[in-house]
Order: sequence, then C-alpha cells, then structure tokens
Amino acid sequence: MTYPEQFQGFAISDPKDWATPKLTSFQPKNFGPRDVDIEVECCGICASELFALKNDWTHDPLACLSSKYGPKTQVVGHEVVGKVVAVGSDVSLCKVGDRVGLGAQASACMQCGRCQSGNEQYCAQSIGTYCDPYPDGYVSQGGYASHVRAHEQFCFPIPPEIPSELVAPLQCGGLTVFSPIKRNIQGKKNPRVAIIGIGGLGHMAIMISKALGAEVSAVSRGYSKRDDALKMGADHFIATSEPNWNAGLDDTFDLILNCASSTSSLDLNALLPCLKVNCNFVSVGLPHIDEDFKVKPFSFFHNGCNIGSSKLGSREEAIELMELAVKHNFRPWVETIKVCEAGVSEGLTRLDKGDVRYRFTLTGFHDFFGTGKQ
Amino acid sequence: MTYPEQFQGFAISDPKDWATPKLTSFQPKNFGPRDVDIEVECCGICASELFALKNDWTHDPLACLSSKYGPKTQVVGHEVVGKVVAVGSDVSLCKVGDRVGLGAQASACMQCGRCQSGNEQYCAQSIGTYCDPYPDGYVSQGGYASHVRAHEQFCFPIPPEIPSELVAPLQCGGLTVFSPIKRNIQGKKNPRVAIIGIGGLGHMAIMISKALGAEVSAVSRGYSKRDDALKMGADHFIATSEPNWNAGLDDTFDLILNCASSTSSLDLNALLPCLKVNCNFVSVGLPHIDEDFKVKPFSFFHNGCNIGSSKLGSREEAIELMELAVKHNFRPWVETIKVCEAGVSEGLTRLDKGDVRYRFTLTGFHDFFGTGKQ
Repeated sequence: MTYPEQFQGFAISDPKDWATPKLTSFQPKNFGPRDVDIEVECCGICASELFALKNDWTHDPLACLSSKYGPKTQVVGHEVVGKVVAVGSDVSLCKVGDRVGLGAQASACMQCGRCQSGNEQYCAQSIGTYCDPYPDGYVSQGGYASHVRAHEQFCFPIPPEIPSELVAPLQCGGLTVFSPIKRNIQGKKNPRVAIIGIGGLGHMAIMISKALGAEVSAVSRGYSKRDDALKMGADHFIATSEPNWNAGLDDTFDLILNCASSTSSLDLNALLPCLKVNCNFVSVGLPHIDEDFKVKPFSFFHNGCNIGSSKLGSREEAIELMELAVKHNFRPWVETIKVCEAGVSEGLTRLDKGDVRYRFTLTGFHDFFGTGKQ
Repeated sequence: MTYPEQFQGFAISDPKDWATPKLTSFQPKNFGPRDVDIEVECCGICASELFALKNDWTHDPLACLSSKYGPKTQVVGHEVVGKVVAVGSDVSLCKVGDRVGLGAQASACMQCGRCQSGNEQYCAQSIGTYCDPYPDGYVSQGGYASHVRAHEQFCFPIPPEIPSELVAPLQCGGLTVFSPIKRNIQGKKNPRVAIIGIGGLGHMAIMISKALGAEVSAVSRGYSKRDDALKMGADHFIATSEPNWNAGLDDTFDLILNCASSTSSLDLNALLPCLKVNCNFVSVGLPHIDEDFKVKPFSFFHNGCNIGSSKLGSREEAIELMELAVKHNFRPWVETIKVCEAGVSEGLTRLDKGDVRYRFTLTGFHDFFGTGKQ
C-alpha cells in the first residue's frame, strides 16, 4: 500500500535503539475532518527527540507499544516543513499545495477556554506530534517520515522569504522560546533578557530576543560559544565558570530564559537575584523526569521573583515569529543532513554529544521517499 | 535617662529564651533627618517574630550581639501603631501628633530604581524593623517597646475609621498578602484566588481578596477552620486531607497564595495544575532557612505556571490597603493581650502552638510604659 494508506518513516520499538531508527512503513491515524496531510520536505532535529526515543520523560514503556491501531513502532520529528497534499472536509486554514510548518503539537480540543484564548498549547487534550495517544488509541507519529498527519490548527503558513531547511527549527524550538520571551517582556521599556544555554533553543532565543527589542546577555559555562553568541546578536556574554560571574548583575533582567535541558547544574540561588522585581526565570528545557528544581524560598524573597516553565506556543505566536524572522532577517544556524537511516543516526548521535552548532535539519525527503512529484 | 535618649522594650539576648523576653531599657539608633519617633500604642504579634527570636532565618548568631552601638539585646515587633512624637528636620510625610503605622520595614535608600518605582520593599539597602544592621552598625529594634524609630517612608497614615488594635495587623501581615494579591489579579476579569493556610496572614488574605473582587477558595488541611473561613468571606473551602481534594480544580486559579510558613508540607506537584495558564503560586510564609522548595519542572509545563515569593508591600500599597479596609469594612480578627512580660510571653507561646484565631495585638502600652500623656 502507498500514501494515503501507508506512510514511511524512521522508527524504533525499543529505547535502547534510540540512535538507530530503521525505515518502516506504517498506517497513519484515521483521517479526521480537520486533519491535514503534509508531504514532508525537511525536518529539524530537536533535543526532545533524544528524550522521547530514550523514553526519559516517563517511567512507562514507549506509548506506541500499547497503541490500539497503527504501528507499534515510533517515528519522531516535530520541526516539519512540507506541502499540504490532502485536507479534511472541514479544513479552512490551509489548502492543498500550501507550504506549511508543523511543530510539536498535532491536535487540541479547540473548544476549551485555553484553546479559545490563544493558549491551545496548554489544552488538557493537547496531542503531541509524536508518542502521544489520540482518544481513538492511535499513538502519534512524527516527521522523520514521508508524510505526517495533523490537525489544521497546527499547520502554520510559512512566509515565502524563508527556505524550508531554515524555517524548520522555528516550528518547535523557535516557537518554544518566542512565546515566553514575548509574554515576559511585552509592554516593558528597554527589557533585558538573559539566555542560558547557547544550543539549539538558546541560539534562536538570542536572535528572537534581539528582534523583539531586548538587550540580550548570553549565558554559558565557558567561553567556547562566546564569539558565536555575539554574532547571533547578544550584547553581553557571561561565562558561569568565572568565580564572580554574577557580580554586578543584581536587579538586571526582565527575564532569564533557561534553554539548557538539565536543571540540576543550575545554581538557582545565584541566578534569581539577577532578576528585576516580580520577574520570571523560565525554563524551556525539560530534563529527565526524575530531576527536580531545588531552590530556597529565600532566593525568591529579595526581588519577589518566580521560577516556572513554558510550553511551545500558539498558532498566532508561530505566525508572528515567522513574520518577525522575515522583518528582522534572522535565521536559525542550520547544518543540513540528508535523510536516510545513516543520516538520522548521525544527527541523533551528534546532537546527543552536543556536536552541533546549532541545529540540524534533515533534508532530501523528496529524493529519499520518491515524493515531491505532485 | 528617659525618652528620647532611652526606649524601653521586651528583649532577649539568647534564642533559647525566645518565649520570655524581659523588660529592658535601650539606646535608640542615632536620629536621622528623615527619622520619626513613634510612641507605641499597640503592636501585633507576627509569626516572623518566632523565627527571628529563635534565629531560624539565619545560621549566624543574633545580629544584635555584634551591633556597633545600642543594645546587645533584641526587641521584636513590627505591626506597630502609635503616635508621632518627634520628626527629623527633613520629614514631610507625617507630623507630630499623627497616628501612624509601621510594618516590617524601617528604612531604604529611597534613591535606587526600586525605591523610585513603588518597590522600596525590595531595595537592596532595605532595613527591617528589627534584627537588621543599619550602615552605622546599629541593629534595629522593634515595636514591643515604648517607642520605635523609623524612616518616615515607612510610617503610614492611618484612616480614623479603624481602631488601633485592629489596624495593627495590617501593617505587616495584611500588607504582605495585599501586595501579591493585587499585583497578580489586577486587570483580570472575575479572578479566582486560592489562599493556603488560614492563620494570621491567610485570614487577612481571604478578606483582602474578596474586597479586591476575587472569588476566593480557602485551603486548609482539615475542616476545623471551615466555618471561620466562610465567615471571613471565602466562597469555597478545600480540605487537603480529603483524598481527591484537587478533583475538578485544574485550570482554576489566577493566583495561589501560600500563607503557611512551612513549604515542605505542600504538595506543589498537585497544587500547580490548579493554576490557569502563566499564573503564579506565591509563597509569603518564609520557612526555616534550611527548607527548600522541591518541585518537578514538568509540574510547571502543562500550564506554564510559576512559583515564587513576595516581600511586604510598598507605602503606596499600605495606604491603599487601609483605604480598602475602610471602604469594604473588613477588619482582622484580633485577640488583644495586655503588654507586659507575661503578656508578651503568652502571645509568643500561644502563637507558636497555633493557638490564635487569628491575630494577637499587644495593647495597653501607654499604661505599661507610662506614655500617652503628650
């Protein structure tokens, strides 16, 4: 069987094989009236993929193993760019032939208060683009694939100015940092933002903060990423390996955005005093499920600050982000890898080692899957 | 010597004597041009006093033991109401004869960005009303005393409608909850607030939240304070001893205000999902210095919420709070105790056991100290 009955993708069925997904054919979820089929052109590699494939965000077995229909294997990938090749009967937000992006969310109820107030990413019935069971028992399958199927709300129109391989990382990583940056600095005069962790998310966060008008401090352990951070637009660079790195930083930032995926290495008791009154430390990197934040209540007391998290962004924010990238002419720093079993393996393995500056996009999907001919 | 050279108050010099402060005479701090002397009429008893007297908020010895001048003993008390009996040469905010309130802050630089933007409580040079060293080496002495000396900024005018013993608890406890409630719900439609811990702070928080237009849920372990909480104005009562206390509470609150002084008994991972998107859990109870918040990053993720703290309130907020109490006719629930060594001891001991509903005010200062005759 071929599309639309079967998709092809790179899948695992055991977390120990996280670095070597194999080409497989699989049944897509049942096609709903607001569903869209995207013929994938390229797909970013996000650190989330490592956690998902290694199954580090849960103590349960891989969700796909208990799917009610569809594959018992798992395809990941949620920075998809591709062409709409089919739309359900009720789809109004895109049409066949459109170039669209799909991030880490593939569905939501679209009826609750959150969905109706620009917070559909926080819908209690939100379905992630992969590893997440739909109400009908299908477990979602991601974008390291020939095609991906998702609710139209999460298929974002892409401005023609940005090439697919560069806009792919904005769909998840870019959006994930854009939402909290915008929400935390909007309405503030001359906001100052600190970005911790100059990796996939962090490098986009620097560029986005600058485009939103902030003065940006890039925060890293050592100096190896200093020059890059300044090229990305950071106004200041802070190396926390210096003994007195936080001297003079009291009462400085309107937002500290933690883009590092581990929380246990952060000295929150030293970071929090750097915030202005009532401002937030927001963590967008999600660590292993057993990691905790540990922080003294007194560390919040002297500036009335908060720590918290943020999840993805809304459709409206995704569109706004891409318009911002066009207007301010910033692009993620991307290394492309041709998609194939070896290419997927190379991307995952190098990302796991931190050997990427600063984002991989898998490309060449049309050649590999024989698509792109419609 | 007598006032203004010497004040009298109830002091300890060793934390083991926390429950039995003794009457003592002591030298006040040097009188500055913006200082005000208040002849104390009454003083609330705040749980902070227990932490300060037991020295539970630091690993250092009592600050007064290393004071450069003034007493080596410590008088606490920071919900003071009294009459202005002397003002420095540059004082413009009050005059001799005024009835004023003094809370937990006695000084600030009044020149930094925080001081000049209604956030003087977060000034890096803030001096607490007791136990806190001034730049000249004097360690501040509180209001269980005949007189107290403080910077005019922190001597708040009191509306004539509220009796002194009832307005006293608003100076620290009331202000401490008013500031985060107001800052977190302002501009929101039909805000919903949860108040955890129905004690000294919590009972004022219920009344203040109602007066600010919120729908209020009082949260306690058991049911013993249910009837009182409803009388204070709570719309709902939640007993966390019930196994499924949080059923149906997802996505409910614009603010959860923790007024309990211990954080370790709170199940943050169960409480945080009750917040609406991007809303805050704010803790105003400060625990023992060795207690930590421990919480999973994932607990913030599903609603993008935050946890944090808040410190006191500004002069502007203190005045607004008292106007609100007049307008909405709410008053703290106060049990008065006549001031004397036995009275101070009784108040502290009963508060330590939780045997107070809901706030003590020490009264009769004029009779005891022979003041009130000017």
